Amino acid sequence: MTLTVPALAAPAANEPLVRTTIDLRTPGANDVAIDIKFAGICHSDIHQARDEWGVGLFPMVPGHEIAGIVSAVGSEVTRYRVGDRVGVRCFVDSCRECTNCLAGEEQYCLKGEVGTYNARNYDGTPTYGGYSTAVVVDENFVLGIPDGIELSEAAPLLCAGITLYSPLKNWKAGPGKKFAILGMGGLGHMGVKIAHALGAEVTVLSQTLSKQEDGLRFGADHYYATNDPTTFTELENEFDLIVNTVAANLDLERYLGLLALDGTLVHVGIPTEPDQIRMFWLASQRRSIAGSKIGGIRQTQEMLDFCAANGIGADVEIVSIDQVNEAYERVIRSDVRYRFVIDTATFGTETPTDA
Amino acid sequence: MTLTVPALAAPAANEPLVRTTIDLRTPGANDVAIDIKFAGICHSDIHQARDEWGVGLFPMVPGHEIAGIVSAVGSEVTRYRVGDRVGVRCFVDSCRECTNCLAGEEQYCLKGEVGTYNARNYDGTPTYGGYSTAVVVDENFVLGIPDGIELSEAAPLLCAGITLYSPLKNWKAGPGKKFAILGMGGLGHMGVKIAHALGAEVTVLSQTLSKQEDGLRFGADHYYATNDPTTFTELENEFDLIVNTVAANLDLERYLGLLALDGTLVHVGIPTEPDQIRMFWLASQRRSIAGSKIGGIRQTQEMLDFCAANGIGADVEIVSIDQVNEAYERVIRSDVRYRFVIDTATFGTETPTDA
Repeated sequence: MTLTVPALAAPAANEPLVRTTIDLRTPGANDVAIDIKFAGICHSDIHQARDEWGVGLFPMVPGHEIAGIVSAVGSEVTRYRVGDRVGVRCFVDSCRECTNCLAGEEQYCLKGEVGTYNARNYDGTPTYGGYSTAVVVDENFVLGIPDGIELSEAAPLLCAGITLYSPLKNWKAGPGKKFAILGMGGLGHMGVKIAHALGAEVTVLSQTLSKQEDGLRFGADHYYATNDPTTFTELENEFDLIVNTVAANLDLERYLGLLALDGTLVHVGIPTEPDQIRMFWLASQRRSIAGSKIGGIRQTQEMLDFCAANGIGADVEIVSIDQVNEAYERVIRSDVRYRFVIDTATFGTETPTDA
Repeated sequence: MTLTVPALAAPAANEPLVRTTIDLRTPGANDVAIDIKFAGICHSDIHQARDEWGVGLFPMVPGHEIAGIVSAVGSEVTRYRVGDRVGVRCFVDSCRECTNCLAGEEQYCLKGEVGTYNARNYDGTPTYGGYSTAVVVDENFVLGIPDGIELSEAAPLLCAGITLYSPLKNWKAGPGKKFAILGMGGLGHMGVKIAHALGAEVTVLSQTLSKQEDGLRFGADHYYATNDPTTFTELENEFDLIVNTVAANLDLERYLGLLALDGTLVHVGIPTEPDQIRMFWLASQRRSIAGSKIGGIRQTQEMLDFCAANGIGADVEIVSIDQVNEAYERVIRSDVRYRFVIDTATFGTETPTDA
């Protein structure tokens, strides 16, 4: 029996999102059916809905920051029960056999993990994301959301949160380590909160000081504007770790100069065009440039538990389903503090809410 | 009292090296005077003698792979005695006060270490390198050469050896790790020998298979030609560590594709022009690009002891002082297996040796 549910979809590249319905698969023995309560809007949703990466499957239902409640479970599901608070993230399956999957790093699956939307399951059926009221996912790709976090504030943790938590843990941000976050948007604000909770000394590098008050409130120790050239002289050789959340081509050598001996600049925002780097800037202080992609299932659960224990959620602005197209424009203008989250209860309303 | 000794110097940029004499400082209380027996020819000697990096101080006496015997020690020298086998490497002083110096990473001195040649001591006097018969160096920047290594084969360890040993240790090449060396020249052949002795599985990536027999003899487990495109498909996602010894701009993304999850591509050959990299190639498997510059004094001594214990020396071709200009041309043509070493006893002969 197929379940038909309302959804918000891009009918084709460069068309606004419109209300539609989608058919969900009948939950199998290992599946969990989830009533979606909130879905975060990630900048990558916009890239994909507008087919800016050239790999769009339409109609497309975006959304990979999903928080909701379990409504049904398959006969062999052991981890979750009806009524549990759960989340779904950027992928809903992986080969489960390759070295990386076996290491719990499913996001680097060598066969290619199955995206939560704009992708196909291994059986060829399309996947649909969180801009909907329900989703059916194998229990191994479902996360438990601890009681300490509001579902609306938990949704963005499923992508923005783990995208920062993973490099912070892998490159050992913690007491005695000087960490800088480059960019103070949806990703960046999570970086500040998590790195602060991990015990690192946190510096924000943002274009201007306009969000300084927020940054300090989130736990930053220092806040610098990158449009001020003295920032780059004052902070030379300063940081053990910089995470770059800006998905645009920057003058990377300026930022490499801010790294101390053995420091690493980790990209989580990935520009499509190549960057230029002279290797001198790496060798002169044994610096590294790296890239990091979300995190594995195990580490994502660890992140959710860590955030709950430390009272960390995303700072969100809740929007109705009919405000999503407008929200996209605001994301592009960086006019959001700090993550839009769709309240899927608004699928029940017929007209836009004036929020 | 100044000591005047014979030397081979570049009188100016783009002029051949000629015989001359230089004045050495009178050994101070902490100085060691060394009779130079052998001096390796590093490719960077050529760059500097020809002022290709635009920072040449002339006349210039190159040479930073120096092996010899202690001829005199200052009154406060405790580490060395007359007759000891010793070496001098790429720098002869550093500030000794900055974070990096205190961490034993003098090659990253934040004040700027003092190069063995083409540099000035902190008092402003020029430094002269190993293409000479003697050198005076503070004992803290002198290395002990263990009895197990011939001085001629030890000289190249002081630059080529440590340049490979340091990243191999820092990025933990050893049992269970798959390591590839890119380039089979003076640096590369040391990388094979040292990585094999550290227990790593070693693959050589060389332009052709012309040096395959040597590579396997040095300890490589596998040998691939980079002019064969199948190399890049066959070895996709294969290596934990690649050290690139080639100081030219390569298509780095081809090599990044050979790195497994969490793999690192370390540059020890530093092209002057920028490289182009799409961050996707890093993020898709959490890969890193890094640069590494020689190694610290403490690690260099550790490397010499390790090489002696494992019977490792450089494969050298010994040349006379009058063959150095010709040797430079051969280095540029990669026509050396695998390092030229100058026998400084040939300063005593007046005409070129027909070797």
